[in-house]
Amino acid sequence: MPDSKGTKGKADMMSRRKLLMNGGAVTAGAVLFGATGSLASEKAPSVRSKLPTTKWDGEFDVLVIGSGFAALSAAIEARRKGLDVMVVEKMRVLGGNSCINGGLFAVAGSELQKKEGVKDSIETMVNDMLKAGRGINHVEITKKIAEGSIDAYNFVIQCGAVFKPKLSWLGGHSVARTYLTHNASGSGIVRPLVDTARAEGVVLRTGCKMLDFIVDDDERIVGIRARDGYRFPNEESGQIRMFRARKGVVLATGGFSQDAKFRAAQDPRLAGKIDSTNQLGATGEAMRAAFRAGAVPVQMSLIQLGPWASPDEKGFGVASMFNIQSGFRYGVMVDRSSGTRFVNELADRKTRADAMLKKVDANGSPDYPIIIVDSKGAEACPTLDRCLKYKVVHGFDTIEQLANFYKVPAAKLSETISNYNKYVADKHDPEFGKPLSTATPIVKAPFYAVRGWPKVHHCMGGVEIDVKGHVLHSQNFKPINGLYAAGEVTGGPHGASRLGSCAITDCLVMGRIAGNSVAGNEPS
Amino acid sequence: MPDSKGTKGKADMMSRRKLLMNGGAVTAGAVLFGATGSLASEKAPSVRSKLPTTKWDGEFDVLVIGSGFAALSAAIEARRKGLDVMVVEKMRVLGGNSCINGGLFAVAGSELQKKEGVKDSIETMVNDMLKAGRGINHVEITKKIAEGSIDAYNFVIQCGAVFKPKLSWLGGHSVARTYLTHNASGSGIVRPLVDTARAEGVVLRTGCKMLDFIVDDDERIVGIRARDGYRFPNEESGQIRMFRARKGVVLATGGFSQDAKFRAAQDPRLAGKIDSTNQLGATGEAMRAAFRAGAVPVQMSLIQLGPWASPDEKGFGVASMFNIQSGFRYGVMVDRSSGTRFVNELADRKTRADAMLKKVDANGSPDYPIIIVDSKGAEACPTLDRCLKYKVVHGFDTIEQLANFYKVPAAKLSETISNYNKYVADKHDPEFGKPLSTATPIVKAPFYAVRGWPKVHHCMGGVEIDVKGHVLHSQNFKPINGLYAAGEVTGGPHGASRLGSCAITDCLVMGRIAGNSVAGNEPS
Repeated sequence: MPDSKGTKGKADMMSRRKLLMNGGAVTAGAVLFGATGSLASEKAPSVRSKLPTTKWDGEFDVLVIGSGFAALSAAIEARRKGLDVMVVEKMRVLGGNSCINGGLFAVAGSELQKKEGVKDSIETMVNDMLKAGRGINHVEITKKIAEGSIDAYNFVIQCGAVFKPKLSWLGGHSVARTYLTHNASGSGIVRPLVDTARAEGVVLRTGCKMLDFIVDDDERIVGIRARDGYRFPNEESGQIRMFRARKGVVLATGGFSQDAKFRAAQDPRLAGKIDSTNQLGATGEAMRAAFRAGAVPVQMSLIQLGPWASPDEKGFGVASMFNIQSGFRYGVMVDRSSGTRFVNELADRKTRADAMLKKVDANGSPDYPIIIVDSKGAEACPTLDRCLKYKVVHGFDTIEQLANFYKVPAAKLSETISNYNKYVADKHDPEFGKPLSTATPIVKAPFYAVRGWPKVHHCMGGVEIDVKGHVLHSQNFKPINGLYAAGEVTGGPHGASRLGSCAITDCLVMGRIAGNSVAGNEPS
Repeated sequence: MPDSKGTKGKADMMSRRKLLMNGGAVTAGAVLFGATGSLASEKAPSVRSKLPTTKWDGEFDVLVIGSGFAALSAAIEARRKGLDVMVVEKMRVLGGNSCINGGLFAVAGSELQKKEGVKDSIETMVNDMLKAGRGINHVEITKKIAEGSIDAYNFVIQCGAVFKPKLSWLGGHSVARTYLTHNASGSGIVRPLVDTARAEGVVLRTGCKMLDFIVDDDERIVGIRARDGYRFPNEESGQIRMFRARKGVVLATGGFSQDAKFRAAQDPRLAGKIDSTNQLGATGEAMRAAFRAGAVPVQMSLIQLGPWASPDEKGFGVASMFNIQSGFRYGVMVDRSSGTRFVNELADRKTRADAMLKKVDANGSPDYPIIIVDSKGAEACPTLDRCLKYKVVHGFDTIEQLANFYKVPAAKLSETISNYNKYVADKHDPEFGKPLSTATPIVKAPFYAVRGWPKVHHCMGGVEIDVKGHVLHSQNFKPINGLYAAGEVTGGPHGASRLGSCAITDCLVMGRIAGNSVAGNEPS
């Protein structure tokens, strides 16, 4: 995707403006606010600094850090309120992790649900999200996300996004409520948002890595320090530049799934040995700069593994979509050594990933489970051709051939599938309680199979926000003046485990809210 | 406990010393370090501040924040290296939460274990801690704690602590390895440590609340800003003072169990409705100041509930010791409505608390389980008299009377106890796998019982440290110059769930290490 480098050029000298650049920190006066919520009584003039003037390398009303779903939504909304907005993306291309997202978008109470006869509501979606989240969601944010889902859908449609005409039913959702972009990728939303943002006058700046927040004496976030011309991952590349944000900064930089050190600090089992579905830039340093600026760290140890990934390709790959759309819905997942099922294939991600990670041999090495679907079930997979071409998914004429290829006991596997087909006929799974109302039996050759293993996929933790997208301060739990956030960089809405296809909803809804909040126009 | 207010008086003017007070933050040059690990290339002179001179209100080599086990251990060790040390405690009394700790102290390979014929090792203790921690412990710190346990025991003995002559065997430990102070309270260790610290010249300052760290241009922590004469919880009380730390600051301020807002951010189920065993000052604001100074937030959502607490008294109370020493070891815990056991009474804390929290009625209100022990088992409880006096524990001549009092089905309860007594005779619990090698049957009147309900007890999360007690920086995971931490304010060593009686070990061992590290003398 192309990028734009327009800025307003060098700013005027700001005479007597007190500025302090630091790791998201504050000057003497500001600290006092942080510690007590009151500026009045604690000024310490003996160390209070008279800071020199500075030059800005560019001035905007709003700086949006990151360029995925949340960032672009915030930028467009703020721009539509008449503000000068610059999107700051550290990578050379726009879109961040959203570009390699699977394009699945949960919407409660959509037109397509009505058309397909699916009964749904905001309450039902919230309850599904709370169930997956083990009840530790920040429920007010969860509700905001579900409530805003229809408007967010209309917003991206109006920007030019196109969706497939059939809903998907993902694990952990009690009904089918998930749209899929026409190209089965998040880029199907990112591109229309980028085009809209550019057409409406948002400045899009790539290769520009935010280093720190710039904070004034009133502890207001007034800008950022960045490496402009940055080339990931060369931390010496580019030039230091300072950009002003008159109204505020929106942090929308995503998670830290690719930062092995930080994720290992939260869960040492994730120290580098396990793959991630995320783009390489998902390293979370802007989130940590926000912690230094006073943001509340929330639920940092809750890191989601995607249960639908395959060890036979890098990252999200093509098999993930195969398993999401076909394998788990229309097929079975079996333990390789016993040939038996071991979990509800449509349980939420945490339940499935935890069950899969137990499939290890005596040395603790993975004994990858196998996901199996028949050719009828595989019709739902938009990436089947590529799955076969890359030899991640294999096709077989008989279950026996499949069993022999993967070294699964063939008789036991046939029995497992035969039992499963009976459950499908009964629409009742007595073993694991998989919802089978739209399932089809595994009967029609060719039979497709893939090896599965979880990958680090989503960080539930992040900075704490309120329902208007204000980032809260760790001492008084009140908004940090001038700092907003949306999307995966925030913590709380998904609790212990995010439901599939709720990330786009979260990012679009909360991004739009943050964009309106920073413009001082906060929709209810 | 008395406190001392000696300081070195007003410090000299520090001409041209560049100081910046902020929420644990940094000046321009320092930020650069935080962002990239290199100071050389990123200085931004146009906004670099020439800060005015300042006065110190007191100068020391080392400031230790907090006054519990970890703080006092660090202070004594640093003092013994010849340093000037001040302990800074925000409350009016010394000792923090350690004073109301139960006084249980796990030591691997002790003399008392040899005397009692208990076979133990550092590896066994580490393995017990990892098992309770669900394998997400920062294992290098866990090992340090177990390795240092004998030396820590000798250290407090040398300071004057006295322990009971019999070991306790706590839930989750595979052997009996826990000492108990002579007065069944952490104060049995705190008092000798305070006396030792004072006798050896450590300055002890109470009513002094740290607000922020003071950081110089090289991003070195050089002191603190504090409210001196502070009276908890009046945030306007006292005077602002600045204290210098020439060598460094040791953060040993404990957890945030009493901060309902912050713990609710991590787990909304803990939003004020649930009691805590901790002293009221355990509110974590110094830990959050450390996050603003760049400390890595680790495993913040892992908050431990004590399963041995009673809803019929405030805080840790007296029943907790009853359940730890007698109820869970020599008795049974039963569901009130069914009269049956539902968990291994000696499982780790998380397992027990999670099982208990499921005992709710149709409205979600607690249906408190009952812990029952006979008079033989109750002999092990050092607080039985007070438990009965405060009417938290009740005594009964027969199981039937007990059942009627608590409205438990009497016949079913008798059957449960009869079955349990058989398991004790067999030394095997086929239902829940409780270790019964030293158990005794429930046969001898009077029978004692108490209602149980978990309380917020310990925060596993905190700032990340290395094995030498350095606090690590969130951008480069290297030590923050001049900042050390030990004890509950740190995150990682206990993983998902801290084993009982390992808190004292953690605090003493890591406190001593931090005290030696800040003195530049780091024992292996």
